[in-house]
Amino acid sequence: MDVDKEYFSNITQRERAIFEGAISMGALFHQFVGTPVNKHTKESLEKAMEESLSLQPAIEKVEVEIRFDKLEKSMTEFDYTSLTGDMLDVRIHTRVSDVLAIIRIEFIEELNYPLMYVEDIED
Amino acid sequence: MDVDKEYFSNITQRERAIFEGAISMGALFHQFVGTPVNKHTKESLEKAMEESLSLQPAIEKVEVEIRFDKLEKSMTEFDYTSLTGDMLDVRIHTRVSDVLAIIRIEFIEELNYPLMYVEDIED
Amino acid sequence: MDVDKEYFSNITQRERAIFEGAISMGALFHQFVGTPVNKHTKESLEKAMEESLSLQPAIEKVEVEIRFDKLEKSMTEFDYTSLTGDMLDVRIHTRVSDVLAIIRIEFIEELNYPLMYVEDIED
Amino acid sequence: MDVDKEYFSNITQRERAIFEGAISMGALFHQFVGTPVNKHTKESLEKAMEESLSLQPAIEKVEVEIRFDKLEKSMTEFDYTSLTGDMLDVRIHTRVSDVLAIIRIEFIEELNYPLMYVEDIED
Repeated sequence: MDVDKEYFSNITQRERAIFEGAISMGALFHQFVGTPVNKHTKESLEKAMEESLSLQPAIEKVEVEIRFDKLEKSMTEFDYTSLTGDMLDVRIHTRVSDVLAIIRIEFIEELNYPLMYVEDIED
Repeated sequence: MDVDKEYFSNITQRERAIFEGAISMGALFHQFVGTPVNKHTKESLEKAMEESLSLQPAIEKVEVEIRFDKLEKSMTEFDYTSLTGDMLDVRIHTRVSDVLAIIRIEFIEELNYPLMYVEDIED
Repeated sequence: MDVDKEYFSNITQRERAIFEGAISMGALFHQFVGTPVNKHTKESLEKAMEESLSLQPAIEKVEVEIRFDKLEKSMTEFDYTSLTGDMLDVRIHTRVSDVLAIIRIEFIEELNYPLMYVEDIED
Repeated sequence: MDVDKEYFSNITQRERAIFEGAISMGALFHQFVGTPVNKHTKESLEKAMEESLSLQPAIEKVEVEIRFDKLEKSMTEFDYTSLTGDMLDVRIHTRVSDVLAIIRIEFIEELNYPLMYVEDIED
């Protein structure tokens, strides 16, 4: 089966790049939020997030930074906390043919919300 | 803050509709896969999936069908199973101004894969 | 196969009741934390959590209360937020033969931690 | 606050070891099931699972093996799949004072179910 022809001929390559990156950003957030984490384990968690999401269609690279300031601010009596959306600073690089899109999540204080948006798109 | 102007002026309304719907589809999959389910609880799970994802930006309606055939096929000795991607048949209706996009997930046997795609887009 | 004899003869019925309830409490937290929620959808989410976790072995009843005060406190510009552990007030009733155990999670301010413990056990 | 005295004086140390290990096993399953994985990323995912769950109370060590046979069997056209319960072979070592409990999950074909049980307990 030609998946692109069968299922994606109704959208442009630019739209496809946005589509695939957005799926992976929604996936990353809702898969990993809740995971126990502290400063000693943040690196292995970042790596697993990066590698696992890179497997999805059209994803070229994933860069995850768990914000240390937010991590420390929510620390508990038991020396770890649960990963929350406000700790996430992530860029997902998506490529479809010549189109490269970078999907970003970052916490916007003014909105009290971890906003996902298209940080950059080139075609 | 004018969020649209600040963060979304680099993409079209059509692209925004695709973007928001794709995020919510990735979210739905990775939030709920793994949930214990059987034929007696599928309805309440479908409703919670529909209502919770409808809260996200630009989402107008979410229609979730947990496929009974796939559910029964994976049934265990304990009379329930875990929700998997192949059981999901979902449509997410997204609206940005005059653009309506329907994002779909359905299991494609030939690919052995629960495919997400843009089922319909009108502008 | 006699599952109880094969896999659970090394623990008492009291221990088994604690074991099964604890599994389901860990499951509930990590399955649902991150779900979009607001005051309009909290009821359907509570019901799905209660029904789905009730399917697991030895679980007799699950009572979920998403704390409205914590929910409102974390509200965002977009009129919803993500479910977090501090919003959870849950009791899982577990029965193994004559032993009834109630496993509880509630947020303890002094620890800044959603503590899981055995609230009551009768045998 | 003396947490042990306040919240755990109604159960024995043996029961507490079972309790804490069971929570972490339920947590591990429901946090990570659904994660994209293939043979190239299974190692980083295993490591993140081990390190993150080791943070929880009383957990001494976590050993995760994602079963390669099950992983390959569910492989898709896109060269990755979603982590499912039947791929999990995990031991969680829990210690409370002198009691060491090993909680195990492994897929039991006869039950078509990933069973969690107390593999070993010493006191």
